[in-house]
Amino acid sequence: MDQAIAVVGGTGNLGAALARRWAKAGKSVIIGSRQAEKAHEAAARLGAELGVTVRSASNVDAARAADIVVVTVPFASQAGVLEEIGPVVQGKLVIDTTVPLVPPKVARVQLPPEGSAAQRAQHLLGSDVRLVSAFHNVAAHKLATDQPVDCDVLVFGDDKAARSVAVELADCAGLRGLHAGALANSAAAEALTSILIFMNKTYRIDGAGIRITGQLDFSASAD
Amino acid sequence: MDQAIAVVGGTGNLGAALARRWAKAGKSVIIGSRQAEKAHEAAARLGAELGVTVRSASNVDAARAADIVVVTVPFASQAGVLEEIGPVVQGKLVIDTTVPLVPPKVARVQLPPEGSAAQRAQHLLGSDVRLVSAFHNVAAHKLATDQPVDCDVLVFGDDKAARSVAVELADCAGLRGLHAGALANSAAAEALTSILIFMNKTYRIDGAGIRITGQLDFSASAD
Repeated sequence: MDQAIAVVGGTGNLGAALARRWAKAGKSVIIGSRQAEKAHEAAARLGAELGVTVRSASNVDAARAADIVVVTVPFASQAGVLEEIGPVVQGKLVIDTTVPLVPPKVARVQLPPEGSAAQRAQHLLGSDVRLVSAFHNVAAHKLATDQPVDCDVLVFGDDKAARSVAVELADCAGLRGLHAGALANSAAAEALTSILIFMNKTYRIDGAGIRITGQLDFSASAD
Repeated sequence: MDQAIAVVGGTGNLGAALARRWAKAGKSVIIGSRQAEKAHEAAARLGAELGVTVRSASNVDAARAADIVVVTVPFASQAGVLEEIGPVVQGKLVIDTTVPLVPPKVARVQLPPEGSAAQRAQHLLGSDVRLVSAFHNVAAHKLATDQPVDCDVLVFGDDKAARSVAVELADCAGLRGLHAGALANSAAAEALTSILIFMNKTYRIDGAGIRITGQLDFSASAD
């Protein structure tokens, strides 16, 4: 049976869009929110739209019930949410999507002292959590549609098998997931989001994304 | 008359490839090298190939003679070279291409304490230098050919007019130069190079690059 995926912060723009694409692809999704009531409403709406059952709960109950926990919250909420779900995600796979944007200068790279939001997450959750980071660069409003999204998903993590799960989740959301190396490498994609925000404004782009160019041999990555 | 471009470290892989593309595009190029003799040899070869005159000198003499100074040296040489040319580049436009790769783990992001090699360069050269960073992600062996290179050049700097010069130099090297914001944003492209190195290995790519996706309105960037 498919593993259950909790989307913590699942009523936000990115979380809702991911939950919808995964539910549509037949994944077992649990929408989490700080307020369980908001999660129930979002899950009911999504379930009705897709004709499937979508579960819902508070963030911590969603994380407790799931095998894979995807964290989609603003940077300012990251520490609080991770401390809250920490006890129930030990030993699990956590996919953190946090981008360290510091308002008002969101078009300026401002990486945290730990090097990246992903390394900060690992520090906060402890080393028993299999931590991966991904989905930093995809425009949520594009992901919320049924259209293809012209953006690669760079996946970071020190455990290759854990990365592979996130790569597959990117693929089944209609994106191209790519192994991008160690968790410390997450700084690259996190920083890139500020560049994309800058470019959206400078070149009037409706949701810039990134692509890795070149001929990729996907059989090689299975080695 | 065209401004003279010194390529400091112009006998290295990236420097030689940039010098060649710019000379071919009719730019006035001065190849610099630690050893003037090596620069002379490279300039003579390039001049003979293209049927143009290519000047050459030691790094510091090349920088002294030029209006625009492009620094293409390994991270380990950055500080020494910048200290050497510092006195002769005050008030000039310097384009730093340094990527903070720390062998042997070049596929791992290891940004310097200043946040980026570009900010380190500004610190070393002082605030009278108009500093821009660019050309972090392009594969030198691809740039060395006459073929199109499938890679955008992200250009960083706190002075928009200075950035525009580097954007134009990217364009006339057959790449797509893009304004990417403040000098602090350079961390994104510098970190990305380690990701591309990781992907070249993981997916057996012959020189991965990056593209910004979306519909760009180039008239907007002139505002």
